[in-house]
Amino acid sequence: MSNNTAGRVIVCKAAVAWEAGKPLVIEQVEVAPPQAMEVRIKIAYTSLCHTDIYFWEAKGQTPLFPRIFGHEAAGIVESVGEGVEDFQPGEHVLPVFTGECGECAHCKTEESNMCELLRINTDRGVMIGDGKSRFSINGKPIYHFLGTSTFSEYTVVHYGCLCKINPAAPLDKVCILSCGPSTGLGATLNVAKPKKGSTVAVFGLGAVGLAAAEGARICGASRIIGIDLVFSRFERAGKFGVTDFVNPKDHDKPVQEVIAEMTGGGVDRSVECTGNVDAMISAFECVHDGWGVAVLVGVPNRDDVFKTNPMNVLNERTLKGTFFGNYKPRTGLPSVVDMYMNKELDVEKFITHRVPFSDINKAFDYMLKGESLRCIVCLEDGVVLK
Amino acid sequence: MSNNTAGRVIVCKAAVAWEAGKPLVIEQVEVAPPQAMEVRIKIAYTSLCHTDIYFWEAKGQTPLFPRIFGHEAAGIVESVGEGVEDFQPGEHVLPVFTGECGECAHCKTEESNMCELLRINTDRGVMIGDGKSRFSINGKPIYHFLGTSTFSEYTVVHYGCLCKINPAAPLDKVCILSCGPSTGLGATLNVAKPKKGSTVAVFGLGAVGLAAAEGARICGASRIIGIDLVFSRFERAGKFGVTDFVNPKDHDKPVQEVIAEMTGGGVDRSVECTGNVDAMISAFECVHDGWGVAVLVGVPNRDDVFKTNPMNVLNERTLKGTFFGNYKPRTGLPSVVDMYMNKELDVEKFITHRVPFSDINKAFDYMLKGESLRCIVCLEDGVVLK
Repeated sequence: MSNNTAGRVIVCKAAVAWEAGKPLVIEQVEVAPPQAMEVRIKIAYTSLCHTDIYFWEAKGQTPLFPRIFGHEAAGIVESVGEGVEDFQPGEHVLPVFTGECGECAHCKTEESNMCELLRINTDRGVMIGDGKSRFSINGKPIYHFLGTSTFSEYTVVHYGCLCKINPAAPLDKVCILSCGPSTGLGATLNVAKPKKGSTVAVFGLGAVGLAAAEGARICGASRIIGIDLVFSRFERAGKFGVTDFVNPKDHDKPVQEVIAEMTGGGVDRSVECTGNVDAMISAFECVHDGWGVAVLVGVPNRDDVFKTNPMNVLNERTLKGTFFGNYKPRTGLPSVVDMYMNKELDVEKFITHRVPFSDINKAFDYMLKGESLRCIVCLEDGVVLK
Repeated sequence: MSNNTAGRVIVCKAAVAWEAGKPLVIEQVEVAPPQAMEVRIKIAYTSLCHTDIYFWEAKGQTPLFPRIFGHEAAGIVESVGEGVEDFQPGEHVLPVFTGECGECAHCKTEESNMCELLRINTDRGVMIGDGKSRFSINGKPIYHFLGTSTFSEYTVVHYGCLCKINPAAPLDKVCILSCGPSTGLGATLNVAKPKKGSTVAVFGLGAVGLAAAEGARICGASRIIGIDLVFSRFERAGKFGVTDFVNPKDHDKPVQEVIAEMTGGGVDRSVECTGNVDAMISAFECVHDGWGVAVLVGVPNRDDVFKTNPMNVLNERTLKGTFFGNYKPRTGLPSVVDMYMNKELDVEKFITHRVPFSDINKAFDYMLKGESLRCIVCLEDGVVLK
C-alpha cells in the first residue's frame, strides 16, 4: 500500500448501477480523498447480499441512480481524514452498513447497536459529513449505498462504520462477516441464546438463516429444525447443523402446529430470517410457552402487520427483534472474526462461488437463481492517480 | 390449632356464591379431610381480587355454581393428606391459584412458573386428585375455585399450591401477596428488570399496576409514568413511586406517541396491567428502540388480537408476557414475604379497607365502585366438628 495516494483523487474501477435492475457496468471512477472522520479503503474482496439486490431492483423504494452498491466486504485502509485517530493506513477492516459513533445513547448501552448517528440509512446516497458523494465520473457524482459502496476498488466510509480486524484473517473469507452471516450468527448467539441441549427452529435457509443455525450448533442445540419453502435448500443445511426439515407446503396445518407436535409443545428458541410476516407469526407461535424466545431478523414489507392472540404472549413467550445480530460494528464485530480465527466458526462453507470483479454480474445471476449462498468478488489492484 | 380435627369432616362458615352476580351467602359447609397430596388449611384472612369478581359475574365464561370463590389469602395448616411431607399442622401458608409440582419441565427450568400439572385452571371446580369437591352442604357438593376457595374458614388445597412463609409475618397483611401485588411486583422485578435510573411506564393503576410501579421504585427507576383512564387513581399512585401521569383521554394522539415525546423516544420498560388489547399495543410501542422491554400482565379477552408493525419488533424492542410475576408458588413466593419482613416492600399501602367475614359482600361493593385497592376480609374461628 503506497502512501503517495493520500490526499489525492484516486481513479479506479467501480461497478456502477446506472439504472434499476440493469447489469452493472465497470467504469473508471474518481474517488475523492476522505474528509473529516472518514477513511478511504482499498476493497480487496466483496460479496453480494440480498440487500444489494433489493435496492438494485428498486421495486420497493424510491430509486437512486447512478449508484455504487455493495456492503459486504473486506479491505485495507489507504488513508484517513482529519480527526480519525483509530485507524492507520495498512490496517485491515470490514466496512459495515451501519455504524457506531460511540457517543449516543445506543452506543453507550450494551443492549443496543442502533447508533443514532450512523444507523443504516438506505435512502442516503451521500456522505453524512457534508452531504456530498466521494465518487464521480467526469465530474458527475455517483451515489453511495449504505455508506459503504464496496463494488469499487476504493471507497470512502465514515470511520464509525469500520471494523478493525485481526490482520492475519484472510480477507477473501472474512469479507462475508461484514453483513449476512454475522446477522444470523449474532441473532442466535447474542439474542436467542439457546442453552446446550435445546431445540431451535430457523425460518429461512439462506445465508442468514444458515448462520443462525450455525449459531445454534455452536451453542450446543440438540435439535435444529430448518423451515423453508424450497426443498433444495435442505441439502446443504445439514452442514450448518440443521437436523430436521419442515417445508410448510408439505402440511395442511399451520407450521407452528407441526413444530409443536414435533417437539412436545414447541421449540425453546426460534429465529426468523425470511422477512415474511406470516413466517414471523409462525416463528413466534412455535416457541414453547413458559420459556420460548422468538427472534425476528428478516426485514418485513413496510405495511405488514404482525398479529397474534395476546394469550400467546401472556403464556410467557418472548418476542425480540434484532438488527445486525446485535453486533456493534466497531467494538463487537471483531469478535466474530476472532471466532473464525479460533476455528469456532466455519466461514468457508458459506462461500459457494468466486468471480473476478469483471464478472460481478454473474454474482447477481447466481443469487437471483438461488444457486449461491455467498459469491466472493475479487477486486484487483488498478489504481491510477489523478 | 387443635389436632383433633385431623381426618374428620369440619363444619364451618363459608361464603357461597349460589348464582352469578348475586351476593354471597354465609353458609355452614362441610369440609372433607385432605386426600393424598392435599392440605387442609384454616384461612385467617382473605382479600378480594378482580379475578374473583370476573368469575363471580360469569359474563365471559361457562358459569359454575354453587361455588366458593377466593384465592388471595393467608392461613394455617390444619392437617395434611397422605404423601404430604413438606407441610406440618400449624405452619403458616399462602394458598396460590397456580401450583408448582416440582417435576414437570416448567418446574425444572428457572425460566417458567407455568407448571404443567397445577397451572391455573379456571374451569375446574373440583380437586385434581379425584375430580371431586371437598365442600358440601347437606351432601350436595359446592364447587372449588382456582384450587383455593379461600372464602371459607377451612379449605383444601393441593400441597403444590401452597407457599410456606415466615411464621412471624402478619397474616392480615401478607395475605394480599398470594396474588395481585406479587403479580405486578414480579412483572417488574423478575421480567422487566429496569435498571437504576431508567424510565418505566405502567398501564393501569389498580393493585397490580401499583405493585408494578412499586417494583420500579425498588429498582431505582428515575421516572415512573402511570397511565390510566380514571383520573382519581392518580392521587394514590404517588405513594407507589409514580412520578408522571398520563390519561389517554387528555390527548388526541396515541398514548405511545405522547410517552415517546415525554421521554425522548420512549421508555426503557413498560408493564401492561389492564388486559385491554389496545393498551397492550401502546405498552409495546411506547418502549424505546434498541433496548426497550414491554411486559404484558393483564389478561385479554379471548378473541383479542395483538397487532403491530413488525418493524417495531425488528428495531430491537422486546415483548414478554408474564404469569403471576414469574414467581414459582412454593419456591419463589416466600421471597416476597421476606421482602416485606425486611422492609424492602411496603404492603400496608395496598390495604384500603377491612371487613369482617359476615360483611364480605361489602368487599365486592368497594371493588366494583373502584374505591378499594385491597379489602381484607377477616375470618373468625368458627369450627364445628362432625
